Amino acid sequence: MSTPNPDDYAFERKIPDGDNMERHVCADCGWIHYDNPKIVVGSVVTFEEKFLLCRRAINPRKGYWTLPAGYLEQNETTADGAVREAFEEANANIRIRDLLALYSVTHISQVQIMYRAELDRPEFSAGPESLEVRLFEWENIPWEDLAFPTVYWALHQYMQIKDEDYFAPFANASGEMLEKSYQILRR
Amino acid sequence: MSTPNPDDYAFERKIPDGDNMERHVCADCGWIHYDNPKIVVGSVVTFEEKFLLCRRAINPRKGYWTLPAGYLEQNETTADGAVREAFEEANANIRIRDLLALYSVTHISQVQIMYRAELDRPEFSAGPESLEVRLFEWENIPWEDLAFPTVYWALHQYMQIKDEDYFAPFANASGEMLEKSYQILRR
Ligand SMILES: [Zn+2]
Ligand SMILES: [Zn+2]
Repeated sequence: MSTPNPDDYAFERKIPDGDNMERHVCADCGWIHYDNPKIVVGSVVTFEEKFLLCRRAINPRKGYWTLPAGYLEQNETTADGAVREAFEEANANIRIRDLLALYSVTHISQVQIMYRAELDRPEFSAGPESLEVRLFEWENIPWEDLAFPTVYWALHQYMQIKDEDYFAPFANASGEMLEKSYQILRR
Repeated sequence: MSTPNPDDYAFERKIPDGDNMERHVCADCGWIHYDNPKIVVGSVVTFEEKFLLCRRAINPRKGYWTLPAGYLEQNETTADGAVREAFEEANANIRIRDLLALYSVTHISQVQIMYRAELDRPEFSAGPESLEVRLFEWENIPWEDLAFPTVYWALHQYMQIKDEDYFAPFANASGEMLEKSYQILRR
């Protein structure tokens, strides 16, 4: 489902009374549309050291592989949202373990909350937003065909703590991991 | 700054094409207003084992004590947002240490991201949204006059890990901590 583009509507940019930032204000009715950062919830899901990935049936990045993840809904906990997304995209019943990473993707104003999760049985199939869903051994992950840099970050950061019961969650990748992840988007 | 109430506008509740949830749709212009969960960023800020708290100058919970925290803005990292909020509310230059907690406050669709942070010098003062700002020893924290349950959670969870360099961040309080925190709202 695509988000409507404010530019398609009769919105003006202005600073409402009592505010200190420009906002979209509807020229017809005065509604103030606060552009709030969006929350994406998802997970690195494993089954017997294999990784559950979904090939996207929708844009952006249709045809590329991603983690089960999507927008948090109203009145939903972040963990429940990650469980729901795995069910919607992969018909998979996952069990959340713990918080793997918290990413700020500032150019698109997204906060991504990524969990570590497990499948108890290798039961899954493509939901409506996926072309296919598969379990990959680490060596066979389609690195050349990942959808987003944060998929690359989450998978690599997972490998750093896969034997840990407790760890401090990761933030945005930096250095070599960041550079390599950006190569994804050139494809 | 208060968020406009959708009920004050010519919005209808309906399910847009291609969606599976009811949304607010503007009856005048067709704009689809997605009610997305909001992100609050804040921190437990300490200076020499004392805790920085702000007394709220605005509703809700005007006059009660809170942590420096507020809504994440567009194009901002969660850590930068927490730094900005401490500066806006307490004129304090804080240094973020690590992620303390991730709360889902589902009845108001908020995700609260709380950091552990430090003040290098005890320099602060009330910003426009605060009546006063003070450093409290743990024993002197105004427990009877805290603004929100999550302030109670964050302070108590902080105490559990104050001597740790690395820890897994906390989620919503449960059990006795949750019950005690709800007593706050009876005042
Ligand atoms: Zn309107
Ligand atoms: Zn309108």
